[in-house]
Amino acid sequence: MSSSGKEEVAVMESYPMNGGDGTFSYNKNSNFQRVATNVARETINEVIAEKLDIKQFSPALTTFQIADLGCSVGPNTFLAVQNIIEAVRRKYESQGLSSQLPDFQVLFNDHASNDFNTLFASLPSDRPYYAAGVPGSFHGRLFPKASLHFVHSSYALQWLCKVPKELVDPNSPAFNRGRVHYTSAPREVSDAYTSQFAKDMVTFLHARGEEIASGGIMVLVMPGIANGIPYSRVPSGVMFDLLGFSLMDMAKEGIISEAQVDSFNLPVYAPSPDEMTALVESNGCFSIERMDLAAPGSKIDVSFGGHACMLHLRAGMEGIISKHFGSEIIDDLFDRFLGKTNEFSDRLNSAYRQGSQLVAILKRK
Amino acid sequence: MSSSGKEEVAVMESYPMNGGDGTFSYNKNSNFQRVATNVARETINEVIAEKLDIKQFSPALTTFQIADLGCSVGPNTFLAVQNIIEAVRRKYESQGLSSQLPDFQVLFNDHASNDFNTLFASLPSDRPYYAAGVPGSFHGRLFPKASLHFVHSSYALQWLCKVPKELVDPNSPAFNRGRVHYTSAPREVSDAYTSQFAKDMVTFLHARGEEIASGGIMVLVMPGIANGIPYSRVPSGVMFDLLGFSLMDMAKEGIISEAQVDSFNLPVYAPSPDEMTALVESNGCFSIERMDLAAPGSKIDVSFGGHACMLHLRAGMEGIISKHFGSEIIDDLFDRFLGKTNEFSDRLNSAYRQGSQLVAILKRK
Repeated sequence: MSSSGKEEVAVMESYPMNGGDGTFSYNKNSNFQRVATNVARETINEVIAEKLDIKQFSPALTTFQIADLGCSVGPNTFLAVQNIIEAVRRKYESQGLSSQLPDFQVLFNDHASNDFNTLFASLPSDRPYYAAGVPGSFHGRLFPKASLHFVHSSYALQWLCKVPKELVDPNSPAFNRGRVHYTSAPREVSDAYTSQFAKDMVTFLHARGEEIASGGIMVLVMPGIANGIPYSRVPSGVMFDLLGFSLMDMAKEGIISEAQVDSFNLPVYAPSPDEMTALVESNGCFSIERMDLAAPGSKIDVSFGGHACMLHLRAGMEGIISKHFGSEIIDDLFDRFLGKTNEFSDRLNSAYRQGSQLVAILKRK
Repeated sequence: MSSSGKEEVAVMESYPMNGGDGTFSYNKNSNFQRVATNVARETINEVIAEKLDIKQFSPALTTFQIADLGCSVGPNTFLAVQNIIEAVRRKYESQGLSSQLPDFQVLFNDHASNDFNTLFASLPSDRPYYAAGVPGSFHGRLFPKASLHFVHSSYALQWLCKVPKELVDPNSPAFNRGRVHYTSAPREVSDAYTSQFAKDMVTFLHARGEEIASGGIMVLVMPGIANGIPYSRVPSGVMFDLLGFSLMDMAKEGIISEAQVDSFNLPVYAPSPDEMTALVESNGCFSIERMDLAAPGSKIDVSFGGHACMLHLRAGMEGIISKHFGSEIIDDLFDRFLGKTNEFSDRLNSAYRQGSQLVAILKRK
């Protein structure tokens, strides 16, 4: 198989978040996502209070079904669904319908390679819902027709299904030499990413359109970027640049080869509100209730230091980096990355002042 | 914590089937259960054809929900649910209702300590259903009210929730000295087991009564025994006696202590049809459509040798034995067990001619 062929393999199947609950596990290093969840919580509460029309569902609705897409291993997914359930419960109460409160069933979805054993072991014992795990890619159908009433996805949709093959083709103008992402890259590179994200959203929205009952709400939280702002100005963009610099330093020292760096691209993307709006409108199944950019960093009390950035990046990206470069470079790489965060601390700190979290709230027509 | 206190801990949470797919894994060593599944298949087909009243469900039924309770890691659970779906599909066709065929969703249940990662990795890629894993004890509620249309459980209900504490109390007449099961034990010992099984069935049937929609079918397949037949005449009884003999031999050689053997009891039980009938009638939620004893052994082409018995027992019981005696005795123990199967081959072979598989088919009133 050619190296470009390899890149076509769906990425999330092969590179789940770090499992278990060790030092570099996603479980222990998802503070950023938790902060993001807290920022989204208020918006979700408002939307359920204002936009969810429980009378639109069957009057005999006995089970209110919630899906969390890209749940990873917790604990953020538990906080998010708990909040959704409390808000729906308040909605029933406020409408004098407490006696009709349905059972809640939560379907935790992630790729089959996700560590569901850890997820299941850490389910809250006093949860006010029936829990189930649903393995599989959310770019295809996962649930029966019109069976869902609320869908939530936080920091999962940024993962592209695959790396566009022109990024690793030396004869293409989109060949991404010396970088690991479209941050600070030529237009052709970011166009290839943009096009792949659009394709992924087509399959995602098509599947959800079939699965969500009329009147059902979908909340999508993911990295986002204001129109016209370069990716190099948002936190993850800075981090990807620093990761690329660290890898190129290692290549210059002969620890890895430049060709290895050239053929490695992180399959993650952050759309702008306008871009996301156009994709949702093109699908046609959903009305857009909110399309906001937030700056979760501004709500963090303690400043995100370089060490926190390193842990965050390592928990999410160690798998995909190890697979490409070998696990023996990991400690060295993230030591160098940590050094870069000090060297570029001004850029990193200023980036946090930009809106970098997209919250899209959609309602199934 | 006293040793009798320890024994009260719910057992299945701590001692799942051997995970993964190694030599002694349940995945590789569940031939007996597969044969059992095949025997039950014909009965299930008949019952769906004759007893399932699909018109009793909502005419707008969009999702037919199937639960497999105690699914372990496959592959038997996949064969079983595939068969159920094919039979339901035929039923719709035979009634000219093909156009109303609902989506199928299968909820694979086992304890949270089950290896769901292996289960999810081995899901058939061409499955005609939406799959979900549901972690938790089936002695409590697992699913929303009236949400299930078909429940299947094969070789799971024989596991008691706990070992009755009098079995490990030297001052009780039910103290089970020198044995690991009620096979060949005094009346008081088997009474304690019988009483625990009855309690477990009360909680099990109560939960299922709430979860299964009116008209829904439940198929329970498990070890069973004809009224009045001693447990020592059925295959698993013989195996438990041989396991006890092997452990006592090791105690006599000082490898383990007799007190360790005295305080160890396998929490598995096989009811008679009359016993099961009385428990179902006492619950009151279900009509009994079938209550049969089958002899799966008689349908096996190649004879079950001692080695197959050893693998079968080890895959299912290694966890619970290791926890009590330590994993260092396991290889020695099962070597001795293999020797016993040769020594007692007549008893083992004659046992297979007895009906030892209970198939209960219940319908939610």
